[in-house]
Amino acid sequence: MIYTQAVLTVDLKALVENYNFLKQQASHSIPAAVVKNNAYGLGIENVVPSLVNEGCNHFFVALANEGEKVRKFAKKAHIYVLQGVGEDSIEIFRKEKLTPVIATPKMWQFWKQNKVEGIRPVLNVETGLNRLGFRLKDIQNLSEEDKKEFSYILSHLSCADEPYHFMNWHQIEAFDNISKFFPKTPRTLSASDGLFLGEKFQKDMVRLGAAMYGLNTAPDRQNRMKNVVYLKAPVLQIEDVAKGEYIGYGASYKVAKNMKIAIVSVGYADGLPRSLAGRGRVFFAGQEIRMVGRLSMDNIMCDVTDIKNLNEGDFVDVLSSQYTADDMGQDAGTIGYEILNGILKSGRVSMDFVK
Amino acid sequence: MIYTQAVLTVDLKALVENYNFLKQQASHSIPAAVVKNNAYGLGIENVVPSLVNEGCNHFFVALANEGEKVRKFAKKAHIYVLQGVGEDSIEIFRKEKLTPVIATPKMWQFWKQNKVEGIRPVLNVETGLNRLGFRLKDIQNLSEEDKKEFSYILSHLSCADEPYHFMNWHQIEAFDNISKFFPKTPRTLSASDGLFLGEKFQKDMVRLGAAMYGLNTAPDRQNRMKNVVYLKAPVLQIEDVAKGEYIGYGASYKVAKNMKIAIVSVGYADGLPRSLAGRGRVFFAGQEIRMVGRLSMDNIMCDVTDIKNLNEGDFVDVLSSQYTADDMGQDAGTIGYEILNGILKSGRVSMDFVK
Repeated sequence: MIYTQAVLTVDLKALVENYNFLKQQASHSIPAAVVKNNAYGLGIENVVPSLVNEGCNHFFVALANEGEKVRKFAKKAHIYVLQGVGEDSIEIFRKEKLTPVIATPKMWQFWKQNKVEGIRPVLNVETGLNRLGFRLKDIQNLSEEDKKEFSYILSHLSCADEPYHFMNWHQIEAFDNISKFFPKTPRTLSASDGLFLGEKFQKDMVRLGAAMYGLNTAPDRQNRMKNVVYLKAPVLQIEDVAKGEYIGYGASYKVAKNMKIAIVSVGYADGLPRSLAGRGRVFFAGQEIRMVGRLSMDNIMCDVTDIKNLNEGDFVDVLSSQYTADDMGQDAGTIGYEILNGILKSGRVSMDFVK
Repeated sequence: MIYTQAVLTVDLKALVENYNFLKQQASHSIPAAVVKNNAYGLGIENVVPSLVNEGCNHFFVALANEGEKVRKFAKKAHIYVLQGVGEDSIEIFRKEKLTPVIATPKMWQFWKQNKVEGIRPVLNVETGLNRLGFRLKDIQNLSEEDKKEFSYILSHLSCADEPYHFMNWHQIEAFDNISKFFPKTPRTLSASDGLFLGEKFQKDMVRLGAAMYGLNTAPDRQNRMKNVVYLKAPVLQIEDVAKGEYIGYGASYKVAKNMKIAIVSVGYADGLPRSLAGRGRVFFAGQEIRMVGRLSMDNIMCDVTDIKNLNEGDFVDVLSSQYTADDMGQDAGTIGYEILNGILKSGRVSMDFVK
């Protein structure tokens, strides 16, 4: 058989299991699902219905247009928009009853003048990441009346994937201190990395993202999440290459001894980072296969000299439980997040779902 | 004003100008447009009609499902599928009258048994890239009758962006030698990088890709292409950060002296590579602004201490004529191709078109 197209599979069952596992790990907190960036590329239309089905009633997105899409599948849920609200999005907030996460005093003034009936905003407070959020001076400028307007106080940890990092303790102290300005307001601090730092970090609501999608957010330990994203790609051609020949663009790879290569129908158009050159791997029946030369847009070349039983038409595993997005991220000098983002958004490969 | 969403603009007018400029550079050859990978992310539905309008009648894609999409907008054109044909795509070839680029002897046998009436395939011959294509032994095994079946002989250069690279001369010699087996068959060797190597490399058809999309495929010289893709993103917040504080994930950036930062609503979810950390730049009214700390999924932080007249609500230029995908690629340790691919496929940002 001859196959030309890669196959992407998303295991929604595993995603739901991850969600429920994480929920148990923070059993005193309300679980919220982070589905920004089109559910990290998996598709809001795929992920949100599965989570609503599990009783999930709180969703975080980055932008209002993402919230609009979530609303279609979660009619009654709270939908929080992390980048906040502005002139370019207020109409969507009004129509879809979205909850803004207020990041700046200017945004707070805007919201007071344009607020949506029945919506109590979240206040983003800065505790050490130096990203969006009210600084101490801004909080001190809020009136007592204003302070009662918020449904949650929110902050975000910068180093929660490193359990012994001093920033975790610095940030939780800052957060607890800021919370004194809002004695009766519920709080949310941790995403799925912070959650593993223990109950002290879990507060009233946890925001389940990366780990739900199978990524390891406690990389000092074995990943306890189920893998969610699988990619396999067909071998189009197997050829002998003689010592002294070159492989791939830039003739950057010179063959040191006679080699057998497989040309696989997947490339950086499918979201594999070019930085995998010299370090990338795929797998066949458990055997590790090394990429050779630069990655092309539509192809990779691999050294299959010692690989057993591989034939043209076979599929190799590009992402699997054996070699996850975290593993590829490590090989590529980045993180699993960016890998998932690239691969899931390639848009060329049809997505199959396990439900 | 408060804006939360980035804005992507694609200048289709510039793309058409680039197409016509390249056509003139290879005036003895038939111009074909490479629109694989969903027209490098710009959208087949946007790019193909503009090119058909200019009389373009030859299109290259990687996969059959891309060819299917091209056919909607180019009813009569020749549509060549670079990854070839197999069991998973033959029905699309039949329905849409696509032309396969035959890569392997096995694929050739498959085509002979399944060929589509009225379609003459292209033969991919390997000349030094060591990617898909017939090797010399495979060509020698073709019957005289078989050899007459092909509408074009195709190969691809590995180092055409380096005009003095020995591989260019090695490959053109190999290609000319192989051509002797097909004395009457038209030939295509060069993409928009090889085209600039001169008429000798242009043969009967040139395949216009990267340069048409504005990338510099002759990087030893000033780019003669017009920029096609523009991305700008709003500043959500401007804040003072004190010496000794940290910025971003991992607390990897420690502030050496008091600094003013801008938090911009764009991140690696929008296709900016994380490898820009420590090296990335954006622009405001021509002023260069340095990113500080790691890139987040939805935000970047920038040092704006010395930047004049920048306020919350202003937009900074992320990609522009001043700082193109090639420039960002260089800062990120990759190429403009991969940058365009990531940014255009982010799918979060609405695309505006200049027509």
